[in-house]
Amino acid sequence: MKIVFKKSDLTNAVSIVMKAVPSRTTLSILECILIDAKTNEIKFSANDMELGIETKVKGEIIEKGQIAIEAKIFSNIVRNLPDNDITLTTDNNFSVTISCEKAVFTIPGRSGEDFTYLPMVEKDKSIYLSQFSLKEIIRQTIFSISTSENNKIMTGELFEVKGNSLKVVSLDGHRISIRKIELKESFNDISVIVPGKTLNEIFKILNGSNDDEVKIYFTDNHIVFEFDDTVVVSRLIEGEYFKISQMLSSDYVTKLTLNKKEFFDSISRATLLERDSDIKPIIMTIEDGNLQLQINTEMGSMDDNMFITKEGKDLMIGFNPKFLIDALKVIDDEEITIYLLNSKAPCFIKNDDESYIYLVLPVNFNVVSRN
Amino acid sequence: MKIVFKKSDLTNAVSIVMKAVPSRTTLSILECILIDAKTNEIKFSANDMELGIETKVKGEIIEKGQIAIEAKIFSNIVRNLPDNDITLTTDNNFSVTISCEKAVFTIPGRSGEDFTYLPMVEKDKSIYLSQFSLKEIIRQTIFSISTSENNKIMTGELFEVKGNSLKVVSLDGHRISIRKIELKESFNDISVIVPGKTLNEIFKILNGSNDDEVKIYFTDNHIVFEFDDTVVVSRLIEGEYFKISQMLSSDYVTKLTLNKKEFFDSISRATLLERDSDIKPIIMTIEDGNLQLQINTEMGSMDDNMFITKEGKDLMIGFNPKFLIDALKVIDDEEITIYLLNSKAPCFIKNDDESYIYLVLPVNFNVVSRN
Repeated sequence: MKIVFKKSDLTNAVSIVMKAVPSRTTLSILECILIDAKTNEIKFSANDMELGIETKVKGEIIEKGQIAIEAKIFSNIVRNLPDNDITLTTDNNFSVTISCEKAVFTIPGRSGEDFTYLPMVEKDKSIYLSQFSLKEIIRQTIFSISTSENNKIMTGELFEVKGNSLKVVSLDGHRISIRKIELKESFNDISVIVPGKTLNEIFKILNGSNDDEVKIYFTDNHIVFEFDDTVVVSRLIEGEYFKISQMLSSDYVTKLTLNKKEFFDSISRATLLERDSDIKPIIMTIEDGNLQLQINTEMGSMDDNMFITKEGKDLMIGFNPKFLIDALKVIDDEEITIYLLNSKAPCFIKNDDESYIYLVLPVNFNVVSRN
Repeated sequence: MKIVFKKSDLTNAVSIVMKAVPSRTTLSILECILIDAKTNEIKFSANDMELGIETKVKGEIIEKGQIAIEAKIFSNIVRNLPDNDITLTTDNNFSVTISCEKAVFTIPGRSGEDFTYLPMVEKDKSIYLSQFSLKEIIRQTIFSISTSENNKIMTGELFEVKGNSLKVVSLDGHRISIRKIELKESFNDISVIVPGKTLNEIFKILNGSNDDEVKIYFTDNHIVFEFDDTVVVSRLIEGEYFKISQMLSSDYVTKLTLNKKEFFDSISRATLLERDSDIKPIIMTIEDGNLQLQINTEMGSMDDNMFITKEGKDLMIGFNPKFLIDALKVIDDEEITIYLLNSKAPCFIKNDDESYIYLVLPVNFNVVSRN
């Protein structure tokens, strides 16, 4: 095989498929990317058996062939070559020569035959949306998946299509994040659980443009994302997602509207007194026109106050500050509204059309002295 | 004690004295900074017994006093407060209240009496130079001190003043770095060994301006740096520095002149094939008009060539690529000259007036096949 690439095309393609190369594996072939130029097209792919990525690369095929190359060293070398044409040559012993100007690297490759191709999936059900929308909806929900493998379903996100609406949900037992967007047309109903890892990697590859689209195909076991010159295939998580509708009551007793940045800054400051090993709650005392924020830890205490607009009853309620911070980070509104029922019931941060709902469970606290 | 600071003055002062707060210590008072406002001046200080820093801070003293505060939490809090006036108040129980706008933090402090003051040193011998010059000369030599405590002297740098010249030397057994600068006037002879840690911290605090000066005082046991509103006192390393003059022969058999960036880039690329656990040499084959650079490791091989101007004999010599890279990084010249004697003798990278000399010992290598 012999191919000539422009450096930028090569580095771009390698960085895309690298997202499906596991950092640790016992199967060394999974650490490789496959370069396939058996036909008139050049395709790079990587596959960790859960997630597979394939991307088309521009280049001049001088001699057809294919090779598997250890991804990390190949990526390091191409990124550090001069900004010029890069020639990739392989011989019968799967030795790979990478040359650029006067520099010549030789590294061992492996037969492409050892490589597991991406699964072929039937493309029946599909939707499309802009890269921007997909990237945003991932960012706005991914933080509240569970990182523990104890409950596999919590490590993924629900993607639910109904008519022209896409709803994405994540939850970890302490909080729920829900985002809804309108699609450009109506599609068949879909409800699947997509692994969080897949979404994290997709997020990194998407260019995020409003003008470029992503086509998403769904099958019983797989989800396929097609965008730019890239195809990402991922297994779905099996099982049924949690029934969240019954947790989403619209009753409330206290409603407050406040400046998001001020609220966020105050809670962030409170966390300076937290130790990871022993998270103390931030205690909110809600009164007409004023929200008092208090925290009391081994390291010290904080007391802060901010202006709010309140309807309904006064209330005192405690939260894990991290959970509030995570939600506030991904809300773009300057003013937010929070709905509360009592000190034992979850709070809802949501907007009027419910295009976002962030539910956070409160925590118990000991009433601190309020001098 | 009660003092009102501007946020920027407070954060700046804390970040300066923090440099003398050890990250790990069994003596908890060393983790504190002392805020001293017993007189009409406000001084912050920290002291890890080797290195002490004191800086004057602007602020309005409403009530005189002093307090020791745990540095890390104090720094975190003040950096995250709103950009406004910050009031620091202490009570008789050494409790510290930090308030800004509506936010009030309360953290425990300690009696200033527990704090070890900076040593008073006799200021007799001294030199002065610009902050820029001191910062540069540290950067250009500090990388070749030894990090191992086996030989204490190697963990410091020689500061030698003769007439109007300051020479700074560091060495670690594999290489020597020497920088010389001209001072604005002549001073008494001085020869001391300054701890590398002190220089690393000084480097971070210096503003690096050409217009601001640093005054350096020397005693038998201490070095004192005075600049801006800050005083840094450090112990010196006891003992006699290595006699390096006998290692600095001006004989050479091969002399080459080459483009620094091209040389640096090629060696950097070669290191992509290195594993930390098993550093292989980069082999330089020096011929008329051409320098060949080769490396051969378990991960693969590289072969590169670049144009050089050569005088004298052809030569083949191997180096630890890291040592060449470290020296090349801090040389600003576009073209550099390298002097060599044979494959067992050190190479010298130096300029004509010897304001810099970088000596690197070669390493043995097995001749690789050169197809």
